[in-house]
Amino acid sequence: MTDAKNVVTGERLAALGLELPEVAVPVAAYVPAVRIGNLIFTSGQLPMVNGALSATGKLGAEISIEQGKELAQICGLNALAAIATLVDLDEVVQVVKVLAFVASAPGFTTQAQVANGASELFGTIFGDAGKHARSSVGVAELPLGAPVEVEVVVAVRR
Amino acid sequence: MTDAKNVVTGERLAALGLELPEVAVPVAAYVPAVRIGNLIFTSGQLPMVNGALSATGKLGAEISIEQGKELAQICGLNALAAIATLVDLDEVVQVVKVLAFVASAPGFTTQAQVANGASELFGTIFGDAGKHARSSVGVAELPLGAPVEVEVVVAVRR
Amino acid sequence: MTDAKNVVTGERLAALGLELPEVAVPVAAYVPAVRIGNLIFTSGQLPMVNGALSATGKLGAEISIEQGKELAQICGLNALAAIATLVDLDEVVQVVKVLAFVASAPGFTTQAQVANGASELFGTIFGDAGKHARSSVGVAELPLGAPVEVEVVVAVRR
Repeated sequence: MTDAKNVVTGERLAALGLELPEVAVPVAAYVPAVRIGNLIFTSGQLPMVNGALSATGKLGAEISIEQGKELAQICGLNALAAIATLVDLDEVVQVVKVLAFVASAPGFTTQAQVANGASELFGTIFGDAGKHARSSVGVAELPLGAPVEVEVVVAVRR
Repeated sequence: MTDAKNVVTGERLAALGLELPEVAVPVAAYVPAVRIGNLIFTSGQLPMVNGALSATGKLGAEISIEQGKELAQICGLNALAAIATLVDLDEVVQVVKVLAFVASAPGFTTQAQVANGASELFGTIFGDAGKHARSSVGVAELPLGAPVEVEVVVAVRR
Repeated sequence: MTDAKNVVTGERLAALGLELPEVAVPVAAYVPAVRIGNLIFTSGQLPMVNGALSATGKLGAEISIEQGKELAQICGLNALAAIATLVDLDEVVQVVKVLAFVASAPGFTTQAQVANGASELFGTIFGDAGKHARSSVGVAELPLGAPVEVEVVVAVRR
């Protein structure tokens, strides 16, 4: 789905060996992303690949920090795909806020390193405009047993 | 509190057998909702009915998915009541974002079905304008032992 | 760092025996705070003092409610310092939203009292403009073993 509309971001994704996934539109009363004015709020993104979670489990148990970071990158990529349902990604002028939920076994306190998987993706793709405010927290359980969930707010050109 | 100011939403709530509850203004340094420009951010809403939690416990333990969904609907209703302290609900032009926290016993991973209780309420009340971005996560504990907490961002007519 | 630019808030902080800490700029793809239009979103703030957590542990276990409340105040102070990297604090016209994550041992359900440490700080500093929407939730684990993490959205003069 790296198409002509997302020239710059498409090239940067390709340089990382990544491409925008198709968005699975939820069969529910909610949507992948909503635009209001120049802000876009995404739904919480799970590390889905081709419609299935690429891993389940918790950090500090089944999932290593390195794996968690890769999963957070997938969440970030899915957030970009959600945003791309509404605008060309080249119209993103600022990644504003990232909230990373990390399913954490007792004693796991390295949520920030996991969240870096999403943060560094945005930095690589958007440069200075990718530098966002961020919270990362360790939660008890995530939908479907996902190890990570990431929601994003971006600003776009008016 | 379904009054003349909220004609359309009032009728839709009534059709569901629901009405807007009174808002318990917190005795604290925070308020039920804040408006800034055309956005309204609500405080996290617990499933309070007449000033008391309608249930306590966790999903995956004392609380079934079906109960949890009903509790999330109550949270959603309380969010509408919080918004109605600031504007007529008929002025809501978009439900932007829903964040649902579900108190989850180990192994409970069906947070999304619980959150649907709030999401489907907004869909019924606001139609397409009720389709929002959403995150649902499973947390360790919620205030007062509540099974669900829901916070909402909406956009209103300027 | 209570300087001439933050006259009013500086005096109020001083009256509480507090002063704005230096901000540790994260060595990461994220930043302490981002401004977009008249809104500022902060990163999640931990109770860091001089670059180290002032306590670790969970509410309901190692950390008492009173301690937790003090830690939440430190998080709130750090949020103000993050905002002050972008604007004079006297330009804050409204504290919009506070999201407080409280690391909670099983059965701890008094997250709201802990979060009051941040909420009451904002009330004291900003008066009515400090009255915000708020969610407080109990999470499994927080980064570095922090007992509390607080993120904030404020509106500033255009």
